[in-house]
Amino acid sequence: MIKTQMEMYLHEELETLTRTEIEALQFERLLRTVRRCMKSPFYQKRFAEAHLSPEDIRSLDDLRKIPFTTKQDLRDNYPFGLAAVPMSEVVRLHSSSGTTGTPTVILHTQKDLDEWANAVARCLYMVGLRRGDVFQNSSGYGMFTGGLGFQYGAERLGMLTVPAAAGNTKRQIKFITDFGTTALHAIPSYASRIHEVMEEMGIDPVRDTKLRTLVIGAEPHSEEQRRKIEKMLGVKAYNSFGMSEMCGPGVAFECTEQNGMHIWEDYYIVEIVDPQTLEPVPDGEVGELVLTTINREAMPLLRYRTRDLTRILPGDCPCGRHHKRLDRMKGRSDDMMILKGVNIFPIQIETVLMQFEELGTDYLITLTNEEANDLMTVEVELKEFSDDYPRLQALTREITRQLKDEILLTPVVRLVPKGTLPKQEGKAVRVRDLRRTLI
Amino acid sequence: MIKTQMEMYLHEELETLTRTEIEALQFERLLRTVRRCMKSPFYQKRFAEAHLSPEDIRSLDDLRKIPFTTKQDLRDNYPFGLAAVPMSEVVRLHSSSGTTGTPTVILHTQKDLDEWANAVARCLYMVGLRRGDVFQNSSGYGMFTGGLGFQYGAERLGMLTVPAAAGNTKRQIKFITDFGTTALHAIPSYASRIHEVMEEMGIDPVRDTKLRTLVIGAEPHSEEQRRKIEKMLGVKAYNSFGMSEMCGPGVAFECTEQNGMHIWEDYYIVEIVDPQTLEPVPDGEVGELVLTTINREAMPLLRYRTRDLTRILPGDCPCGRHHKRLDRMKGRSDDMMILKGVNIFPIQIETVLMQFEELGTDYLITLTNEEANDLMTVEVELKEFSDDYPRLQALTREITRQLKDEILLTPVVRLVPKGTLPKQEGKAVRVRDLRRTLI
Ligand SMILES: [Zn+2]
Ligand SMILES: [Zn+2]
Repeated sequence: MIKTQMEMYLHEELETLTRTEIEALQFERLLRTVRRCMKSPFYQKRFAEAHLSPEDIRSLDDLRKIPFTTKQDLRDNYPFGLAAVPMSEVVRLHSSSGTTGTPTVILHTQKDLDEWANAVARCLYMVGLRRGDVFQNSSGYGMFTGGLGFQYGAERLGMLTVPAAAGNTKRQIKFITDFGTTALHAIPSYASRIHEVMEEMGIDPVRDTKLRTLVIGAEPHSEEQRRKIEKMLGVKAYNSFGMSEMCGPGVAFECTEQNGMHIWEDYYIVEIVDPQTLEPVPDGEVGELVLTTINREAMPLLRYRTRDLTRILPGDCPCGRHHKRLDRMKGRSDDMMILKGVNIFPIQIETVLMQFEELGTDYLITLTNEEANDLMTVEVELKEFSDDYPRLQALTREITRQLKDEILLTPVVRLVPKGTLPKQEGKAVRVRDLRRTLI
Repeated sequence: MIKTQMEMYLHEELETLTRTEIEALQFERLLRTVRRCMKSPFYQKRFAEAHLSPEDIRSLDDLRKIPFTTKQDLRDNYPFGLAAVPMSEVVRLHSSSGTTGTPTVILHTQKDLDEWANAVARCLYMVGLRRGDVFQNSSGYGMFTGGLGFQYGAERLGMLTVPAAAGNTKRQIKFITDFGTTALHAIPSYASRIHEVMEEMGIDPVRDTKLRTLVIGAEPHSEEQRRKIEKMLGVKAYNSFGMSEMCGPGVAFECTEQNGMHIWEDYYIVEIVDPQTLEPVPDGEVGELVLTTINREAMPLLRYRTRDLTRILPGDCPCGRHHKRLDRMKGRSDDMMILKGVNIFPIQIETVLMQFEELGTDYLITLTNEEANDLMTVEVELKEFSDDYPRLQALTREITRQLKDEILLTPVVRLVPKGTLPKQEGKAVRVRDLRRTLI
């Protein structure tokens, strides 16, 4: 099936399903997945313990009868305890580095790799990339899923792929200019670095390169940062969401509206739950992303707790896809603070602070309590200290006002000189909870 | 087409062609390739300059009418001057690092990648690897062709692939033990390093791992080194030959006879020429390997001078394949010395020296002349110096005798203490030619 340049959808049938059709397909695939899971020693046991059998799943809502799967489950059953096919059918594994504890492993059959490539190809096609484009991938390869993941997806689309891999910025730039790279996959901070080195080399990204599309992901960043990168490099930058537990890249991706990432609901069932109660939260509210793979053979995961915080953007997307849209990730559920019964995430504070040109990038949130009264103090570093006190006072007031708008609580804001906030192993400490528990 | 464990050939029809059939297929594919080359600006010009047209190729022997292609040609036409298809049909490029001058680029269509994967799969199948094996690839990925090359080939075969990528030896070993790796691709020196670290970790490769097959290549090594590695790790080690200009891995590979690497003559036409006269040398004699791609779309290369020195092993192989066998590479043609009209390569000297346990790995060959009389002096470092002069004298005599057997000339041999030979940028200098040209 040859696609013309003008066609909007790579997999038109799947991308334009109505909500009813999506849910019908999801239920069908969920049933198949649950049955498949009964071949994995881990899920056999898990279902038995929950007194659950595949026959108990009679509707999409029955998904909630199934216990969650966690990263710890993957660790406890390392390496192959979640395999739902004979190991002779597995053609690839990706392993996490395991720098923090036992590594985890994800398994793929040939069909899994094929469907993964399809998902990535669909994402790239969605933002206008076509055969004839030159796609440069600055991900690490090998065990990093961004390497082989984008490689296979971009090849599937028939683009000229440049497997640049990570590092050596000057060489990346030489590839961009020599090969006429039109699309680059890079994490946001690396895209900024490429621009910086281009400037040093006297290369104007608009005049001297054909770069028009940037795929960014893997690293938290704000809308402001995205717009800045787009302006610097003269590109459109699209957010990509993936995680190795769900293959890697290709889970959710922005369409040309740049307003939330469509999650491919023919591959995944998405839930957003309160990280405390584990109850679902309504669309539009932030919670922990929980994903169920429904298009995977080797190692299906049921209700996997990703620990990533995000929300479903309510409403329809003008692009014609009814696949739900995820907001950019808002941090990790482990970072969530509960203050006066309200869930607050450091990224919310950060997003507000980053809008002020006078502020640096380091900040510290301290939580204290006095007589059951929770108090938040936000210390933030100034880029340059000044003794223009009236200006500093006004700035403090404005920051406080905007934070209150965001988190619905009034914090105490303190501006401090650069380099004065505490660091731990070189990394900034973001949150310090000094509240005493009242019994 | 499902293969049983017992079948010997992955592509039986192609692997068991008779010489007559191979040559008929080669001629047919050569004609197609030459016609294809006429779409590349470079070959159009090259043929015009040689007053040659595709119609002049009327037999396989007519290949010799075609001028050689060199690495310099690739550089001069960087990046896309040798493309024989529209760039929109190219789905991958691999670029050399270009640390020594302009980089070179090799282009691949989807079919090229497919055939590359087939070639690598055929190699791995030939040495007994099958679906059910666990194949760990310690190559660098990205632009290094050993990464994606072995990845696609091993996946094609349905093995469980572990894309370990280069480096982190302890992690490589953890992969080997945790995932039950049965086959490892590594350069010889890295295989030794893995064994060394296993010893430190108290891991016995035979008792504690399932490792049985090693694929080694990319680095010159001797038969002695191979046997040593096999013994250390308790594996069979198979030589692999590839080069990025010919895709990467998958050009030539040993069968289970471990006696020369079958070059896939349905992909390549092989010639061995004298690096000075560029005339063909008879089978069995060392010369420069020249390859013509006859199964490539994006960027065919006609009579490419690889600069690698090797020879065709005469005689039939008991495995039933009539594809010619290459001896292991004997260095680069640029390193060739001509002494009293005899072509000599440093690797010949090295192979002899490495058989003596008393000797270290560093040596220096110095060429001088006195009145048109060429003289070779070989200085070689002793592992440990001793004052047992009679022993040293006997050793010197024995080395001289064996060198004479190999190169048919009598060199002067000098044993020197460790660390006394000159180095250049950390690398040992192998040859110093101090001969004055006599006019
Ligand atoms: Zn949309
Ligand atoms: Zn053989």
